[in-house]
Amino acid sequence: PPSRLPQLGTTVFSVMSALAQQHGAVNLGQGFPDFEGDPALLDAVDRAMRGGHNQYPPMPGVPALRQAIAAKIETLYGHRYDADREITVTAGATQAILTALLAVVHPGDEVIVLEPAYDSYAPNIALAGGVMVPVPLDPHTFRPDFDRLRAALSPRTRVLMINTPHNPSGNVWTADEMQQLAGLLEGTEVLVLSDEVYEHMVYDGQQHESVCRLPSLAARSFVVSSFGKTYHVTGWKVGFVAAPAPLMAEFRKVHQYNVFTVNSPMQVGLATYMADPAPYLGLADFYQRKRDRFRAGLADTPFRLLPCPGSYFQCVDYSGLPAPLAAMDDMALCQWLTREVGVAAIPMSAFYSAKAARPSIIRFCFAKKDETLNLALERLRQIQ
Amino acid sequence: PPSRLPQLGTTVFSVMSALAQQHGAVNLGQGFPDFEGDPALLDAVDRAMRGGHNQYPPMPGVPALRQAIAAKIETLYGHRYDADREITVTAGATQAILTALLAVVHPGDEVIVLEPAYDSYAPNIALAGGVMVPVPLDPHTFRPDFDRLRAALSPRTRVLMINTPHNPSGNVWTADEMQQLAGLLEGTEVLVLSDEVYEHMVYDGQQHESVCRLPSLAARSFVVSSFGKTYHVTGWKVGFVAAPAPLMAEFRKVHQYNVFTVNSPMQVGLATYMADPAPYLGLADFYQRKRDRFRAGLADTPFRLLPCPGSYFQCVDYSGLPAPLAAMDDMALCQWLTREVGVAAIPMSAFYSAKAARPSIIRFCFAKKDETLNLALERLRQIQ
Ligand SMILES: CSCCC(=O)C(=O)O
Ligand SMILES: CSCCC(=O)C(=O)O
Repeated sequence: PPSRLPQLGTTVFSVMSALAQQHGAVNLGQGFPDFEGDPALLDAVDRAMRGGHNQYPPMPGVPALRQAIAAKIETLYGHRYDADREITVTAGATQAILTALLAVVHPGDEVIVLEPAYDSYAPNIALAGGVMVPVPLDPHTFRPDFDRLRAALSPRTRVLMINTPHNPSGNVWTADEMQQLAGLLEGTEVLVLSDEVYEHMVYDGQQHESVCRLPSLAARSFVVSSFGKTYHVTGWKVGFVAAPAPLMAEFRKVHQYNVFTVNSPMQVGLATYMADPAPYLGLADFYQRKRDRFRAGLADTPFRLLPCPGSYFQCVDYSGLPAPLAAMDDMALCQWLTREVGVAAIPMSAFYSAKAARPSIIRFCFAKKDETLNLALERLRQIQ
Repeated sequence: PPSRLPQLGTTVFSVMSALAQQHGAVNLGQGFPDFEGDPALLDAVDRAMRGGHNQYPPMPGVPALRQAIAAKIETLYGHRYDADREITVTAGATQAILTALLAVVHPGDEVIVLEPAYDSYAPNIALAGGVMVPVPLDPHTFRPDFDRLRAALSPRTRVLMINTPHNPSGNVWTADEMQQLAGLLEGTEVLVLSDEVYEHMVYDGQQHESVCRLPSLAARSFVVSSFGKTYHVTGWKVGFVAAPAPLMAEFRKVHQYNVFTVNSPMQVGLATYMADPAPYLGLADFYQRKRDRFRAGLADTPFRLLPCPGSYFQCVDYSGLPAPLAAMDDMALCQWLTREVGVAAIPMSAFYSAKAARPSIIRFCFAKKDETLNLALERLRQIQ
């Protein structure tokens, strides 16, 4: 039978991780830490598991975890979500995004995506029967261009997807840009799907601008985040989504028939662990040091460092590398780096829908132990 | 914005569990055990978690778990799946079913469902853009009617969904019925989606007939199962799907952009624990005793017991209850039982797409401690 997703291969993250493993390369490709979560968190999960939390939790998630999420959002961003009706725990952020799209996109509806964009968005929109409308971010600054966004809006626009801090560029939306977004959507029924999985990784004293800070955006938004990213446990696959009750009601209709609910001992353990805000409040400092270490190591190399105000990704322009390398396309360069230098990275082109887009940019993940970063830097600095 | 699933409320299982909790009723509604998983399994998960298995596992699942699944299927059903390309670990069986449908159903394709059917199937088909074609099982025996199935086949039929052991009726397909299914589909391109989550709960010496026992069916089937059901850990949300490589390739295209992968410590723990076949091989005896206890307790009551050759559900016909009760519709009776008798059950009508279908049948889950069953029976036996 014909494929529903005929153009689609395996996600670049799996492909590059497999290649890294095959060549024993330092894996700065797929975004995950090579260090462990807090033993206190593991203890809390173990206690939950031994304490009898192994059967179906409530469909929207363990109440204590939803309350902890709502309390955190209110403290940090000033928006009060009703933990009963407006927060749902998901099997990771990707499942939250697909579920939200399946819940609100009708066949033929348009979904605006700012490119470069995380590689699940386009197939998620296709699966929901939607039509993706890509709008480029500024190719140098990766900032949103509101004139282009305005031009992309149509009566068929159902959802506008945003992502801050941004994967892959690390760009962080400003309060002014959020205001501009609110203004742009005023008077429309367009929904916002805001991927904020790197919410706690904003550097240099800047703050994370969640869409929920602005009431007019909060009222039309799904806000998605990830415990895997925040607590260094990407393999647990626990995230959450917050949205006003009418939107959340639609979300849950789909959620209950997708995963139904999410791993119970992990949820109970996370609920206990969230009582202490220090781990997520300390995250920006923790990763800023890693970012600085990585940038310092590449400062005097032919790689040109792009700004990295947020996320755990550092992008570099490689057009200053020696001739044969600079001329490679970004996928070829990533393969070469993995095989010949022993450091895996992700090509920027993987985040664009049009094959034509071939920026000379690759992405490194710096969520790694200092010794891992040191080893990678040692190797990368040898490129002549 | 208009709803994608306008008719849909909250799943009956959540509704009845909430009602049971509200009234302090013994919950024989939603299908989950009220006892714990094997401490050896919990130990294995804890070891995995402490042993550094907390980052993204490979997208299709932990290799050792896929190998253990393939080995089990080969031993029990004689079909050899390639663990690399033909097994994928899922966030429960429901996620497997939605993902399979999203992967192969094109808008307008027909999906045949034998009714009564698990309540996620219809919304899953709708989300995939498919058209559900319900075919009734025999209303007394719940056996498939191959003449009706033949009549339901059309050039637009993409998938035929089956479920054995059957939820809610407990019916179990025979080898002869599987042969008839194989014959029916010969020469067509119809795929089979076989929900076998109760595969280890077949009683009275009968054997589970997996679709994969017959090569011509295995070649066109997704086979879905659940560790939650088999190992008494429904809250972990881990299941799996097996399918021939070309079908699995399509499945994984969607899976990688739905949940991407599944909880890592649980997968690693399950892989270790599966090395011992005793727990799943002993499951039929374990639950047969519970079934027998529950049936014995209801034998001399006005409830008429339906046969229960498999699953952990016992259906009863209540048309012999005293007049006002016998005349209630099945949802009203379940609510009355929960509130007034203190025992929650699930109405059979929840498993039918047509509101017209109002059999006087309700479903009890007997996956409960003996003392829980005893208490429920004590209460149910008081109905005059
Ligand atoms: C799901 S694997 C990809 C992890 C990630 O967010 C990234 O590398 O961008
Ligand atoms: C996902 S909750 C429902 C569990 C179950 O399989 C049932 O009760 O039929």
